[in-house]
Amino acid sequence: MEVDLDSFSARDWEEPTDADPIRFAMVGLGWWTREQAIPAVEDADYCTTTALVSSSTEKAEDVAADMDGIEATLTYDEWADGAATDAYDAVYICTPNGLHRGNVEAAAEHDKAVLCEKPLEATVEDARATVDACREADVPLMVAYRLQTEPAARRARELIQDGAIGDVVSIVGHMSDNILDAVGEDSWRFDPDLAGGTTLNDIGIYPTNTIRFILEEDPQAVYARAESEQPAYEGTDEHGAFQLEFSDGKLASCTVSHSATVTSSLRFVGTEGELTIEGLFFPNTRKVLRVSGPGIEGEYRPEPVDQMREEFDYFANYLQRGLDPEPDGEHSMVDMHTIEALYESAESGRRVELDL
Amino acid sequence: MEVDLDSFSARDWEEPTDADPIRFAMVGLGWWTREQAIPAVEDADYCTTTALVSSSTEKAEDVAADMDGIEATLTYDEWADGAATDAYDAVYICTPNGLHRGNVEAAAEHDKAVLCEKPLEATVEDARATVDACREADVPLMVAYRLQTEPAARRARELIQDGAIGDVVSIVGHMSDNILDAVGEDSWRFDPDLAGGTTLNDIGIYPTNTIRFILEEDPQAVYARAESEQPAYEGTDEHGAFQLEFSDGKLASCTVSHSATVTSSLRFVGTEGELTIEGLFFPNTRKVLRVSGPGIEGEYRPEPVDQMREEFDYFANYLQRGLDPEPDGEHSMVDMHTIEALYESAESGRRVELDL
Repeated sequence: MEVDLDSFSARDWEEPTDADPIRFAMVGLGWWTREQAIPAVEDADYCTTTALVSSSTEKAEDVAADMDGIEATLTYDEWADGAATDAYDAVYICTPNGLHRGNVEAAAEHDKAVLCEKPLEATVEDARATVDACREADVPLMVAYRLQTEPAARRARELIQDGAIGDVVSIVGHMSDNILDAVGEDSWRFDPDLAGGTTLNDIGIYPTNTIRFILEEDPQAVYARAESEQPAYEGTDEHGAFQLEFSDGKLASCTVSHSATVTSSLRFVGTEGELTIEGLFFPNTRKVLRVSGPGIEGEYRPEPVDQMREEFDYFANYLQRGLDPEPDGEHSMVDMHTIEALYESAESGRRVELDL
Repeated sequence: MEVDLDSFSARDWEEPTDADPIRFAMVGLGWWTREQAIPAVEDADYCTTTALVSSSTEKAEDVAADMDGIEATLTYDEWADGAATDAYDAVYICTPNGLHRGNVEAAAEHDKAVLCEKPLEATVEDARATVDACREADVPLMVAYRLQTEPAARRARELIQDGAIGDVVSIVGHMSDNILDAVGEDSWRFDPDLAGGTTLNDIGIYPTNTIRFILEEDPQAVYARAESEQPAYEGTDEHGAFQLEFSDGKLASCTVSHSATVTSSLRFVGTEGELTIEGLFFPNTRKVLRVSGPGIEGEYRPEPVDQMREEFDYFANYLQRGLDPEPDGEHSMVDMHTIEALYESAESGRRVELDL
């Protein structure tokens, strides 16, 4: 076994430089930015927050009042028009999904590197335009799949690619939370046009993208079922279950819910062993990785990392080193097509093949 | 919490009587009968093996040579013709699925109680005729779902019915083994006519029936995907994944494989907590039940019971007490219809509604 599990959470992507920290403009000051992104960057090694962009100057100033080092507090319009572009190097975009395109296009116009929340947009078409805008402006675009810098997912990927459980045969995943408690029923997450879908989209993307990352391949076909029970979820999807088909007969089965206890897990079963991760998809929870196979048998409970800090530091350190951070826009397009296919399948009750 | 977990593996169904042990004829002496059923009955409290029925007298005598108390060694034909009916009270039928009907009908004709392996038959039509034969002859028919007397499944059912995790929202299950290693590629399990299906049927029935047992309800619709990779599986299903839809938007997602490491697990996620069982579906393995909810947080690792012994003793003790053992034939018909729908769905790529 070549995988080094002694330094479980070591930053295998990191290479410190003498460069100045990357200065971020936070675009969109909802609960996720305030409670997760801003604290993560305050703790980060390679970046800092210097600009805040929101629907009103007041809201931006309110948030700035509790922070050090803010050089600009802007409305979306002021920011899009190019105000204070000297005050920041990169943008973190955390607005409703359906507004990502316009904001990324503005950032590209200002020649700023972009870290954009997932999913990239509400529709495949807008996501495509978003990726193209960054390519044409030659600005780096990374989509904020924080699992790809989560040590438990990275070690799982190394173990599986190293053959620790033989050939993967089955994958089962689950993710659930209670989004009504977190954001209330007026949230854009319940507006199909702004969100592009609620549960299969908003949290289905976690097992989907993480399975892709760990297997290092993309799904070939899907099936999905969506259910709505509570009135707040009328016209959208509250609970879901879906299958993803990968090469050589590998099948993934996942369940997701926005109205259940906060929990998540991912299991890979192979011809010679099994690997499971409990608590994987949430940002600051204890992860438990269990693996059994011919050359390994163990349970790992590393100290939790702040997934958002790892993600921001990775992005910033890569920019400092002049490298293109990943996962990039083209990678995220596969999830956009997959999620579109999940909803098509849930609507039709049929398996949908992906032609990626 | 009303559930008593201190006596985790206590036989909540048991009531000792002064009655003589139930004397079993073992019909079909394949590896499962020899390695699992006969040793279980040798250890049992309420039953004993007194007759052996196989394809030849020699084979039956070979098996009898290592046992005490065998009064009759019969061919299938001799047994069906009514030889030695005084030597046994009940039959355990463990032949290829597609031969169950003829054997159960013979047992019913001899007025013997029947414990028949699952699935009840290879087709819905033959299963229906099998159930009807027992009803008309007024003999008890129990289908050998050994999970229904497995303490971990019974405690999970009590906890969930008692509300330990709130309302169930998602269920994820997995079961895999390597059947080629266990039975070789000449086994009837690879003959669709005798088996009625290989993986979705032979092991898909474990999560399907156990979820039904624990939720105390039946699926309303299904979807399935089957895959075959190895030559031995040509024309049948080696790996599978399926969804079961239950009331109120509850969705179950399962993966199964007959060509992977031996492992199994079942997870219930509710509005207020989560319950998982590792190792559930195999007869003598360590089970680990983990539950977390508002009134309970714990991990239980009971001493493994012999699932086959529990099943035989339950069946025998119920017969001694003049009670009808469950799960009965009508219960098993729901699985027959469900599995038929799984294969229909795997063939068509479409969701299939069940009209049970």
